[in-house]
Amino acid sequence: MTTLADCRALDAQDPLRALRDQFTIPEGVLYLDGNSLGVMPKAAPARIAEVVTKEWGEGLIRSWNTASWFDLPQRLGDKVARLIGATPGEVVCTDSTSVNLYKVLFAALSQQKDSGRKLVISERSNFPTDLYIAESLCRERGFTLKLIDASELQGPDSVLTEEVAVLMLTHVNYRTGAMHDMKAVTAAAHAVGALTVWDLAHSAGAVPVALNDSNADYAIGCGYKYLNGGPGAPAFAWVHTKHAGEFEQPLSGWWGHAAPFEFTPHYRPAPGVGRYLCGTQPIIALAGLECGLDTVLAAESFNGDHGAMSALRAKSLALTDMFIRLVEERCAGHGLSLVTPREHEQRGSQVCLSREEGAYAIVQALIARGVIGDYRAGDSQMPDILRFGFTPLYIGFEDVWNSVEHLVQVLETAEWKREEFNRKNAVT
Amino acid sequence: MTTLADCRALDAQDPLRALRDQFTIPEGVLYLDGNSLGVMPKAAPARIAEVVTKEWGEGLIRSWNTASWFDLPQRLGDKVARLIGATPGEVVCTDSTSVNLYKVLFAALSQQKDSGRKLVISERSNFPTDLYIAESLCRERGFTLKLIDASELQGPDSVLTEEVAVLMLTHVNYRTGAMHDMKAVTAAAHAVGALTVWDLAHSAGAVPVALNDSNADYAIGCGYKYLNGGPGAPAFAWVHTKHAGEFEQPLSGWWGHAAPFEFTPHYRPAPGVGRYLCGTQPIIALAGLECGLDTVLAAESFNGDHGAMSALRAKSLALTDMFIRLVEERCAGHGLSLVTPREHEQRGSQVCLSREEGAYAIVQALIARGVIGDYRAGDSQMPDILRFGFTPLYIGFEDVWNSVEHLVQVLETAEWKREEFNRKNAVT
Repeated sequence: MTTLADCRALDAQDPLRALRDQFTIPEGVLYLDGNSLGVMPKAAPARIAEVVTKEWGEGLIRSWNTASWFDLPQRLGDKVARLIGATPGEVVCTDSTSVNLYKVLFAALSQQKDSGRKLVISERSNFPTDLYIAESLCRERGFTLKLIDASELQGPDSVLTEEVAVLMLTHVNYRTGAMHDMKAVTAAAHAVGALTVWDLAHSAGAVPVALNDSNADYAIGCGYKYLNGGPGAPAFAWVHTKHAGEFEQPLSGWWGHAAPFEFTPHYRPAPGVGRYLCGTQPIIALAGLECGLDTVLAAESFNGDHGAMSALRAKSLALTDMFIRLVEERCAGHGLSLVTPREHEQRGSQVCLSREEGAYAIVQALIARGVIGDYRAGDSQMPDILRFGFTPLYIGFEDVWNSVEHLVQVLETAEWKREEFNRKNAVT
Repeated sequence: MTTLADCRALDAQDPLRALRDQFTIPEGVLYLDGNSLGVMPKAAPARIAEVVTKEWGEGLIRSWNTASWFDLPQRLGDKVARLIGATPGEVVCTDSTSVNLYKVLFAALSQQKDSGRKLVISERSNFPTDLYIAESLCRERGFTLKLIDASELQGPDSVLTEEVAVLMLTHVNYRTGAMHDMKAVTAAAHAVGALTVWDLAHSAGAVPVALNDSNADYAIGCGYKYLNGGPGAPAFAWVHTKHAGEFEQPLSGWWGHAAPFEFTPHYRPAPGVGRYLCGTQPIIALAGLECGLDTVLAAESFNGDHGAMSALRAKSLALTDMFIRLVEERCAGHGLSLVTPREHEQRGSQVCLSREEGAYAIVQALIARGVIGDYRAGDSQMPDILRFGFTPLYIGFEDVWNSVEHLVQVLETAEWKREEFNRKNAVT
């Protein structure tokens, strides 16, 4: 049996332990929800205050030049590039994940519009907003959205056929934590002539991503989860350079113009990913995002030339392995099932458990104890989920022990049943 | 001749004078560029710091509930509504101006898609990003964008015919400060069966706007100019309730879903303008916008039931009248021409001057003196412009005097010629 002492020993040996000091973690909170909203970097309040009082307050309009606001989306994009296997100049930080998905899916569909291909494939369990964006775009542009299970991508009856225009997947599933093999799936899609669109919302800052090595076509991702950019931080978009110069930008705003300060009446897109900028971006929010990006990039110093994500990945897997082991050792007989794959190469940086009843109440009881994970409701095809994210930057092995200890106590006492009772009898 | 003493006397009598105390105006700066980026409200640094350290840092994911993040875009929208002649529930604060324009123009074109009408009319001198968005959308959706001069909207040869699907105008022109009669133009458009899309970037917080009284169809506007929301603050969108329930949202993201927390795989738009939310919004930036909105709404207390803009408008016109008068009295013979209309009902809250040569250098010389206006380059159809915005919340009559005093000195000395020399001989 694993012990608290074992976990403490792992923390003591953890070369990344000091990275945790970059964050302000609230007293009494054990935060396993960095996959929903990352923790605040200690540097963020001062940097944001500087942007507010100095750049806005004192610099005013002059800060477009003196504080280089115009370069910000690409400068931050270059930092994101280091985390997702991209090259500087290939990424911009801008708008929301959903808006960026609209841009890249629009572009991919435009590239396929004369191909005769009519199918867009995605997973039934993909994050809903991705499906909503795809649903509208497919309807408007004459494509059919087909929702599948991940297993249908493989084998002789694979849904990947020459009818497929675009394969749009989230790299790490938000509900299950299951991760696709980006390189293999991209190759399979390309083999039938389909383009790939990857959502990296639960990947960027969480697992190694190799966009160029995978020869992916388009990707977008989120700034406020594992990148710790703050609530609603700008998202990012990436396009493979093989499409540069030809991909479309439906949201053809001034910031993506080839010569934005000429104020010409006709749109001429900037070369490369710069065209994915549209309107004026929230400068203060971008400052928060940069603080978050820097906390992840700080891991680079622990791993020589292999990048931040290589070092972080080893710890992430050790944390999720430990969580799985402790749940199995200590919560047996309580009706929990493991939803997240055991195989390392198929796992993101989270662990999801299911339970036939009480999942919501158990999560609420944990939150009441300061152990913040989250709950995702199931449906006829998917069970209710208890979801626990493990951000290796600030979560340690003793945290894993403590979270399972709380889970054991919630399950062994009537605590979650009281939550369930309160919920069912709530006066609304 | 008007004197400095006259201006001081006007300030002394100004009932709105105290509103200026809401702002931090940098030492040595005379800021006539609030139409580009509004001045920082004194309340903003503390409020933003609170959102960063308390709501993000301590509350973390719990702040969606405890800090009501989900309600923020509509709660702020209700504040904007009070400034643009709309009703609470009709406005959301979200995304950028350009992205919002895409949404509303998309919706208007969708409503007209079976009408046989193929023309979208806008002004040649409209803000370029508006034209870029319209250009792409028209091409994608089978419409033709026709650019006109404002004068072509009137008379027997008016371009408003039964071929027109949408009339898309910026209410106050960004270059000239000329303002359309929204009610009359909307009526003329409706008379031929066209829908109207209004950009209020230079109107919201600058001039009274009466969207519902004008029976307009769609409107969008900017949060960081006269609304003082901070650099790149979220923009806003409004839709007339007559279109509610039927207008389209191409950017069909989770936040605009009728039941966003059910995580259902199919998109079902929220009723009303709520569907114009798409992805997760920058919460910290929205906090800055609220501080800015509150500075404008503070003018409500000076004007009983007539709203903030009625009081502010009287002062704005007095300021721009004074600037025009002083320029004419004191800068005669220096080759300046007035571009902005003299007629009050055709003027926004800015004054633009043109000059055959040296406009850029004169603006640079003024900026070097701390008098911040801006320059907009001309072309074969439009002259170079010196642009001066007068935000009545924080600009006074003595400021107007001083800005003209500086202009006189720049013109009467060789100062601007030195700037011109430096520019022409710059080593780049």
